[in-house]
Amino acid sequence: MIKVVVLGSGNVASHLIRAFSESNETAIVQVFSRHPVSYGNIPVTGDYGALLPADLYLIAVADDAIAEVSRMLPFEGRLVAHTSGSVALRETDGRNRRGVFYPLQSFSKSRNIDFATVPLCLETEHEADYSLLQQVAESISGQVYQVGSEQRRSLHLSAVFVNNFVNHLYHIGEQLCTENGLPFDILRPLIAETAAKITGIPPSEAQTGPARRHDNTTLLKHREQLQSHPLYLLLYSLFTESIQKSE
Amino acid sequence: MIKVVVLGSGNVASHLIRAFSESNETAIVQVFSRHPVSYGNIPVTGDYGALLPADLYLIAVADDAIAEVSRMLPFEGRLVAHTSGSVALRETDGRNRRGVFYPLQSFSKSRNIDFATVPLCLETEHEADYSLLQQVAESISGQVYQVGSEQRRSLHLSAVFVNNFVNHLYHIGEQLCTENGLPFDILRPLIAETAAKITGIPPSEAQTGPARRHDNTTLLKHREQLQSHPLYLLLYSLFTESIQKSE
Repeated sequence: MIKVVVLGSGNVASHLIRAFSESNETAIVQVFSRHPVSYGNIPVTGDYGALLPADLYLIAVADDAIAEVSRMLPFEGRLVAHTSGSVALRETDGRNRRGVFYPLQSFSKSRNIDFATVPLCLETEHEADYSLLQQVAESISGQVYQVGSEQRRSLHLSAVFVNNFVNHLYHIGEQLCTENGLPFDILRPLIAETAAKITGIPPSEAQTGPARRHDNTTLLKHREQLQSHPLYLLLYSLFTESIQKSE
Repeated sequence: MIKVVVLGSGNVASHLIRAFSESNETAIVQVFSRHPVSYGNIPVTGDYGALLPADLYLIAVADDAIAEVSRMLPFEGRLVAHTSGSVALRETDGRNRRGVFYPLQSFSKSRNIDFATVPLCLETEHEADYSLLQQVAESISGQVYQVGSEQRRSLHLSAVFVNNFVNHLYHIGEQLCTENGLPFDILRPLIAETAAKITGIPPSEAQTGPARRHDNTTLLKHREQLQSHPLYLLLYSLFTESIQKSE
């Protein structure tokens, strides 16, 4: 049984703890949290001095707190990995053996995630540590990738486009519906199909719409409709240009 | 049995014909196509003069051909509906009773669509015609909405945001992955979760990311990474502004 200590109690930490609790190869021996939390039988401490021995320490806290937490650890030479997409491996304290254990998914309190499908992006400072990190990752997920810090930076940026920005487009769709007395539900099947379509073909082949067709009549009509939403009008024009340049 | 003639043989026409062929209440009695096509036992003609009598004529052709096709019909006083999201009801010829039968979905040749979940947006010039159009719609879909021409214009614009633009963001994600030696597959679970998440909560509540968190360190890093993609950099900045103004 591989012993893991999780530092943190936010969304990512909680989802990881739940996933590991169902694994037979990895055990969470302790959770470190500054706030009072409860994870069933798992001991919780808020005292760095009380941290238990473990094979792996996973720092799952906010990006800007990772370096500080790594400096507070009262030991050295142990394997310490953070879970962030945008923090480089070398940004954590060098007294311990550094690693990254980045789950590429959007976690929220209210939704369960099937961890078996979550891509885990791993990196270690020392090659010898990789197999342990891999073993821990494979105990909860079928999607394990070796990803360097530079690659991870790009991945995190890509995730902003396909997650945060996509969600904002859903928000714009909802707003346009609401303003016109239409339920957002009417767009849901299209949203689902748009995401499903690219499981079979690459996005470039799936591209349709007035921009791709160079349908200038419709493009002009749409721009006129967006006069009262100057930011959305700018987005519309920029997307049109970008789609047409991607052909 | 309600008799329907479909004019057109593109994606929308073909998907509609397939859906109606499984309905017990509606029968496609003829397909009009200028090109040679085959739809099983359904008679096909390319001659306007040979059009059969029917309860409903569905014009499922390219937007800019709809008006012309409606003018070519050699009869008057019959119910004629087009299937476009962006063409107003009054744009078709007034000799016949006008209607709209707009399926709000993205159709492609290679993918089957479960028509039962496709929202059908209906409009008729004469109130008396609505119940027939509704009956036809309900024979293939459980999602039937009465949508006026102005509302439909907004809906079509919304669809561009949540379908065409979302797909372009997928394309950008794919490109950033490829440039960094990563498989696009690594983003797929995130794409699926992003679309699934808003079935439970509105997009405004689902919004996460550095823009929403006002995480200026990450926003700056991301902008630096996009220096070699000026259009994506502009999109990034505009999305950041729009997300922050939507709070």
